[in-house]
Amino acid sequence: MNILDLLVGKPILTSDERAEQIGPARGIPIFGLDGLSSAAYGPEAALSLLIPLGLLGVQYIVPVSAAIITLLVIVYFSYRQTIAAYPSGGGSYTVARYNLGAFPSLLAAAALLTDYILTAAVGISAGVGALVSAAPSLLPHTVAICVGILFIITIINLRGVREAGVAFMLPTYLFVGTLLITIAGGLVRTLLSGGHPAPLAALPPPPAMTQAVSFWLLLKVFSSGCTALTGVEAVSNGVKAFREPGVKNAQRTLTIIIFLLALLLAGISYLVKVYGFAATDPGKPGYQSLLSMLIAAVFGKGIFYYLTMASILLVLSLSANTAFADFPRLCKAIASNNYLPHAFGYRGRRLVYTYGIVVLAVLTALLLVVFGGVTDNLIPLYAVGAFLAFTLSQFGMVVHWRKNRGPHWFKSALVNGLGGCVTGITVIVVLIAKFAEGAWITLLFIPMLIFFFRRVRRHYHAVLVATTSSEAVAPATHGQPPIVIVPVDRWSRICKQALEFASRISPEIIAIHVEPGEHSELLREDWERYVERPFEEAGSEPPQFVILPSPYRFIIIPLVQYILDLSEKHPDRRIVVVIPELVEDHWYEYFLHNQRGRLLEWTMLVRGNERIFTVSSPYYISEKAWSARPKAEESKKA
Amino acid sequence: MNILDLLVGKPILTSDERAEQIGPARGIPIFGLDGLSSAAYGPEAALSLLIPLGLLGVQYIVPVSAAIITLLVIVYFSYRQTIAAYPSGGGSYTVARYNLGAFPSLLAAAALLTDYILTAAVGISAGVGALVSAAPSLLPHTVAICVGILFIITIINLRGVREAGVAFMLPTYLFVGTLLITIAGGLVRTLLSGGHPAPLAALPPPPAMTQAVSFWLLLKVFSSGCTALTGVEAVSNGVKAFREPGVKNAQRTLTIIIFLLALLLAGISYLVKVYGFAATDPGKPGYQSLLSMLIAAVFGKGIFYYLTMASILLVLSLSANTAFADFPRLCKAIASNNYLPHAFGYRGRRLVYTYGIVVLAVLTALLLVVFGGVTDNLIPLYAVGAFLAFTLSQFGMVVHWRKNRGPHWFKSALVNGLGGCVTGITVIVVLIAKFAEGAWITLLFIPMLIFFFRRVRRHYHAVLVATTSSEAVAPATHGQPPIVIVPVDRWSRICKQALEFASRISPEIIAIHVEPGEHSELLREDWERYVERPFEEAGSEPPQFVILPSPYRFIIIPLVQYILDLSEKHPDRRIVVVIPELVEDHWYEYFLHNQRGRLLEWTMLVRGNERIFTVSSPYYISEKAWSARPKAEESKKA
Repeated sequence: MNILDLLVGKPILTSDERAEQIGPARGIPIFGLDGLSSAAYGPEAALSLLIPLGLLGVQYIVPVSAAIITLLVIVYFSYRQTIAAYPSGGGSYTVARYNLGAFPSLLAAAALLTDYILTAAVGISAGVGALVSAAPSLLPHTVAICVGILFIITIINLRGVREAGVAFMLPTYLFVGTLLITIAGGLVRTLLSGGHPAPLAALPPPPAMTQAVSFWLLLKVFSSGCTALTGVEAVSNGVKAFREPGVKNAQRTLTIIIFLLALLLAGISYLVKVYGFAATDPGKPGYQSLLSMLIAAVFGKGIFYYLTMASILLVLSLSANTAFADFPRLCKAIASNNYLPHAFGYRGRRLVYTYGIVVLAVLTALLLVVFGGVTDNLIPLYAVGAFLAFTLSQFGMVVHWRKNRGPHWFKSALVNGLGGCVTGITVIVVLIAKFAEGAWITLLFIPMLIFFFRRVRRHYHAVLVATTSSEAVAPATHGQPPIVIVPVDRWSRICKQALEFASRISPEIIAIHVEPGEHSELLREDWERYVERPFEEAGSEPPQFVILPSPYRFIIIPLVQYILDLSEKHPDRRIVVVIPELVEDHWYEYFLHNQRGRLLEWTMLVRGNERIFTVSSPYYISEKAWSARPKAEESKKA
Repeated sequence: MNILDLLVGKPILTSDERAEQIGPARGIPIFGLDGLSSAAYGPEAALSLLIPLGLLGVQYIVPVSAAIITLLVIVYFSYRQTIAAYPSGGGSYTVARYNLGAFPSLLAAAALLTDYILTAAVGISAGVGALVSAAPSLLPHTVAICVGILFIITIINLRGVREAGVAFMLPTYLFVGTLLITIAGGLVRTLLSGGHPAPLAALPPPPAMTQAVSFWLLLKVFSSGCTALTGVEAVSNGVKAFREPGVKNAQRTLTIIIFLLALLLAGISYLVKVYGFAATDPGKPGYQSLLSMLIAAVFGKGIFYYLTMASILLVLSLSANTAFADFPRLCKAIASNNYLPHAFGYRGRRLVYTYGIVVLAVLTALLLVVFGGVTDNLIPLYAVGAFLAFTLSQFGMVVHWRKNRGPHWFKSALVNGLGGCVTGITVIVVLIAKFAEGAWITLLFIPMLIFFFRRVRRHYHAVLVATTSSEAVAPATHGQPPIVIVPVDRWSRICKQALEFASRISPEIIAIHVEPGEHSELLREDWERYVERPFEEAGSEPPQFVILPSPYRFIIIPLVQYILDLSEKHPDRRIVVVIPELVEDHWYEYFLHNQRGRLLEWTMLVRGNERIFTVSSPYYISEKAWSARPKAEESKKA
């Protein structure tokens, strides 16, 4: 347990749990991190699709951004209402479950789980993208750095993030602050230079134009840019965490987050246009992230540049943390409806949902390794899940308003309906535009997840039905005693102890020796002397002694067959198999003895029936103590 | 079991075993393969050390070979005598054990085991070396091909090599035949050209001279060349396999093998000198094995070349098979003296020593991967073990002659003594010459193995002493019944079945419910209705119901602590822990339920004592059957 203590900390009492009570100042870092950090990869994801248009491509970034910001504002109004309607937390899964029914809620659940895995992967890989932009020599180690950061985040989360809010404040505000300063600086320079500022650091050469502009291309650019919206639903999940008045505080927090995000998106895309940045190909030498180019162009590669890049790395890595906060909680909610293994609902030693954290870490690591830790490869998978969850949540709200019919229900339903329609269309656009690049993976993964959910639920239901008992116990003080089987290898203390236990349970004992070849006369003699005689002297029937030949030298198979036959012959009796086990000091000593005991137990469990019970009869031996054994034997006799 | 059947074949009856009875014609392939195939890598290993001498180096191959052949002849006479003295098989381990005592025999055992692992690795890698010489495009896949061949050999050996002799005859005689033809052809061309034959295929350019000749270098060349002698002890291990007169047949076989090997070594080294072959660097582009150059130079790269190369590949791979034949048998012999885990002595379904084969395969694979499948990297490790075993065997024979004092004992002792001295000196020479290149690994590995042997034996001895019983069993028909513990989660059929079993064993039952948080009133109610009332109605004491609080949400720990405390409180009573287990149709369903039952059982085994027994009370549920359950329930009642 010591390594565990060191790594994830000492256990925490259940009663030590307490609710956090936060206001907007701490709410923005906690719930806004994921959303705000999207500004670091959304515009870049869009821009990199414009590479084939060469210098001309940069011109299209502004209208695309305008469309994305409009979408953001619509989503904002929708979620404001969700917050008001579900003050105890209205995640997409919950809203869909209450209002739309089982299947849509599973769809939302599958979409959200996919989304969280991608959030973790994209956050980390984008953060590392910022790092390798600042220090290009690290480029070949992208995947290793990604996995390292993932490991640290996992450990932190396994320890439990109690004061996470405070730790998150500095990097979040640093990130927003430095980016806003950069944007402001860029605007001032643009004004001073009459619209054509000269970059302070050399820009990568603009790409050659290899393709003409098309509606299809712009659609794809829009779809990629939409990833900038991911994470805005976080506040609606966490209304409960805000101090009174909860709804007001949550709404205020959401407003600030959306305003800041819109400002960042607008500022970045405007500066991209006036400076004429062209994206570089990630994962290749010479790659530089968009924000890296932007800051370097406005302020040069000085202290401020490195400070901003550091805050970007931190914020993006921490945005992966959002997934670690939400994924296990969502899994727990799904598991409590029996759609996921119940293990997701157990809280470990540190009061966190250990299983969820570990599963998320493993899946994220897999994703990072398979996609080489490059954000752009992950983006096509990303937006589908997020927007699908948005859509279901919004339509769930429409049903909610209609059911509850408050004073302005129609207006509210209209706002959420508009949000739902817009995000729904976006899902379709993203699906079509990104299908070939990888959205199909999401499209395969979500139904598979739903299938899995349903199978799990069906299984739990079957088990529940099959095991629920409204029958009283039948005390078995009457009736026949069980038949006890004791496998015997040679006459030893281990065997003696097992036989003594057997004789305590039942007068009907069968000792079985499996004979794979050489005939053992010795055992027969020992048996007579050490077992049959004492039993007769005690006036009881000695155990039956059966020798099973084993022409194929198997030990377990004839034994199991014998027991199964016996059980069939006596369908009204219980059979108890007493398995003598040698327990030693060190685990490695285990390999020096055959593991037939364990194997027999396991085989009986798999092939047996409800009337066959296996007993481990442990005999303890310690190498240090063996010389002292006789003494121990004495004291036992006394 | 079906995959196993397919892969390694159906089980074989112990009674179907039969001894092979062979003569020299089949004895040469079986026992000579390892020795003869050494001709394929021994001279090359020597020659490659002469690379730094440039063209001059080639001149030194003839005197070095002469020394090696002299050594071979001395070893030959020694082993002729060993065969006569140990007609039932005189491996180094056996001879050392009978004549020199425990420690030398362990030294021989460790040396031989090391040697066999290396034989397997060197055989395969040299075979693949021949392959990549013939098809250089395969060079990058060296390791993969090595591991693939190893896998095939392993499977063949797990199936059991019943008619191996016949299968070995063709490649062995093809190998010897083609090589002898090549040597003869080379000699004829040398004579016809007046001592300076022109090679038919282009030779690689001779290396530049980068070093002057030194005694030290020649010593290293000799050490490497000595690997050509490995494998000559095989006949002495297998005298029993020969048909009557066994000793004569075995000696005849040994004579032919040694004669052929000497001929091959002499022929190859003479042709190397007259053609002026220089070794190429293995593992690097442009590598060509010495025999490949030789055959190509004499006959060109025609059909004959590819036929010979194929026979070399086959013979070398099959020589790895020698290790697979001997390693498991040696392990068995060592295990029967308790120096290795007894598992090495069990014969599997195909009458072969499965454990030994698997362990050898794993170690060989490791060696091949670590050393990149290049023979030259393995050679420095090789000769030490083999020659150490030779030496111990020879000196063992000296003691043997002295003890038995037959008519010519002194002459016999002298021959073996000379053999022992010469091989002993060779061990030292090889150790010194090859120390830095890797012989130190052997020097570390052998003492580690001996240490391991002794620990294993000590452990078995301790267990034997501690468990051997000359005490009679004490039938426990009197005295107090055990205390039965039943962990209860919720009221279910699983729980009901466990309780009914418990009530059969003892009237004293304690049901324990661990409460990690929420209070379960339901369980209390169920307990009263379904357990307490029926027990009272049956007129017996109902089980005690204990609720253990668990502030840290652990389930197993409080339970185990309770049981241990109870056991301490009642030092004279047995405790039986009945663990309800749910057994399902499919293994993957296992993950849907917590494995607390198994964990509890395991923890009890590790932390418990001899008075605590655990019982698996299995409850079987099949998803298909659950709708049919009520019926099953009915029939059970009836």
